[in-house]
Amino acid sequence: MSSADQISILADAIRAGSMRAIAHGITIVEQGGERAHLLLQRIHGGGGHARVIGFTGPPGAGKSTLVDQVAISFRRRGYRVAILAVDPTSPFTGGAILGDRIRMTTVVEDPTVFIRSMATRGALGGLARATFDAIAVLDAAQFDVILLETVGVGQVEVDVVRMVDTCVVVLVPGMGDTVQAFKAGILEIGDIFVLNKADREGAELLARDMRLLLSLESRVEGSWEQPLERAVATRGEGVPRIVDKIEAHTSFLLNSGEGKARRRRVIETSILRIITEKIAREILTNQRAVLDDVVAECEQRQLDVYAAAQRVLEGLQGKGILGGT
Amino acid sequence: MSSADQISILADAIRAGSMRAIAHGITIVEQGGERAHLLLQRIHGGGGHARVIGFTGPPGAGKSTLVDQVAISFRRRGYRVAILAVDPTSPFTGGAILGDRIRMTTVVEDPTVFIRSMATRGALGGLARATFDAIAVLDAAQFDVILLETVGVGQVEVDVVRMVDTCVVVLVPGMGDTVQAFKAGILEIGDIFVLNKADREGAELLARDMRLLLSLESRVEGSWEQPLERAVATRGEGVPRIVDKIEAHTSFLLNSGEGKARRRRVIETSILRIITEKIAREILTNQRAVLDDVVAECEQRQLDVYAAAQRVLEGLQGKGILGGT
Repeated sequence: MSSADQISILADAIRAGSMRAIAHGITIVEQGGERAHLLLQRIHGGGGHARVIGFTGPPGAGKSTLVDQVAISFRRRGYRVAILAVDPTSPFTGGAILGDRIRMTTVVEDPTVFIRSMATRGALGGLARATFDAIAVLDAAQFDVILLETVGVGQVEVDVVRMVDTCVVVLVPGMGDTVQAFKAGILEIGDIFVLNKADREGAELLARDMRLLLSLESRVEGSWEQPLERAVATRGEGVPRIVDKIEAHTSFLLNSGEGKARRRRVIETSILRIITEKIAREILTNQRAVLDDVVAECEQRQLDVYAAAQRVLEGLQGKGILGGT
Repeated sequence: MSSADQISILADAIRAGSMRAIAHGITIVEQGGERAHLLLQRIHGGGGHARVIGFTGPPGAGKSTLVDQVAISFRRRGYRVAILAVDPTSPFTGGAILGDRIRMTTVVEDPTVFIRSMATRGALGGLARATFDAIAVLDAAQFDVILLETVGVGQVEVDVVRMVDTCVVVLVPGMGDTVQAFKAGILEIGDIFVLNKADREGAELLARDMRLLLSLESRVEGSWEQPLERAVATRGEGVPRIVDKIEAHTSFLLNSGEGKARRRRVIETSILRIITEKIAREILTNQRAVLDDVVAECEQRQLDVYAAAQRVLEGLQGKGILGGT
């Protein structure tokens, strides 16, 4: 059986919802390359109705527990749920950190909930590309809701969060200066804010600060008003209200046209990412000699990096590599 | 006077060490494009002996104070010092956060110390590219030591930190689980570890944990042994020892050949970044119509993103755009 046949069979199994096939499919897209491309072509056309809900916030905010509770709540409402935990900040382990910690038993023991951790070390947007592709696999497998959990609020996290339909930002009291946290960019990326561990000291003050900052946001007529919800995720408190807000945001996306605009941006970014990744890979493999030459000349200060880049580009063009395959 | 003439005059002024010219030069490279390229060509060939020392760690670790103290210490040893504070996590403000907070008077009042904050919102590695170019400007201006301060340990921070000759990781007691922090990749990127606020509760325990984790690192004969230094930066305690360790690491880089290998990697990454940025810009401007077409087809599920990327690439190739100018 050819590799293409195997991929076609895998694609069918993914579409049929086989958990084993889905897991294998995500491993393939994580690795990237031709097989990943082939799989994505095969599953393309299926799916298309999954909602992607992102959860972000500082480490220790209780995101995983909240995600588990939200998953349970969506399950109770009859939806098929997948959890994708993305860990971009692990160059040290090279593996997923999020996968290490214990998820709630109720979620893990539910055989219909798909759970997967992802971590990729590749430079130049590898993780964002892999996450986008993994979402495509889960979408093809007919999940209704994909919960995407990320660590921190750095640029990669922002890239990942920009792939979602709805972004939930999770904060907790005692994480230091609120203003500092807000400056880190969360106000712009959050559709829904959750103040987790709301029974802790400092929750009142944080809620007040956040309400003030949210009220300062410039808002046009008919735009989405970012809600602030309190929760104690470990006890499930506040979770149904959060899920209600997610549902409300889904309706907003649908009715306002904002949902369509977001999807379009996601596709566009994804295409640009594939192009730049492909070119970088081509240079690092087949154009290695040219690259080594110009790097040596830059080292000896005979060439600046911009002129070096131009020479590598001309080499690519001359060989007709970019338009090939 | 032509724009090229103006840039040549600016380049001369930068090389002569004019603080105003340096600041203007960095603004130009922040903006990118043709003028930036021209300036970098003009200053190219000068400089080349500046050491870049990176400081990273979680918000609240006291990095800024430590950087200021290290700057003072280097000044006392007779070096010319520049401070570059890079803030990749500020999509919200669009401006530099680090610039907001008050630096130590001793540093700010020293007219020979150049201080600048940078924050860029651009996707696809814009900040890393701008930081690399700003370092080139400071290098051309004959600074001996460039202190590069970054926030957090996300992927962009890792990208920026990979540009430095020596990376100092700053930690403090009470930032939560040590193991969690180490999993976030800092063990791999740090050449020198500083336990700041060492007079605080929990410092002993953190030092023990860190020593244990550092001892687990696989180390080959003749490689650098990452030191752990204690400091109370606000009182300047421990700072001379940290500067000694930086000097020792500089010698190690020089004698081992590791310094040369690092510089080569920095140049290579920089070239790849320029190429991918250039291609992305070309697509988003001159190929806008083609891009919009394929995005629309992807939206309607007539095309997958990989096939879409291929079509955009073929358009670029066909028009001979990549090899042009």
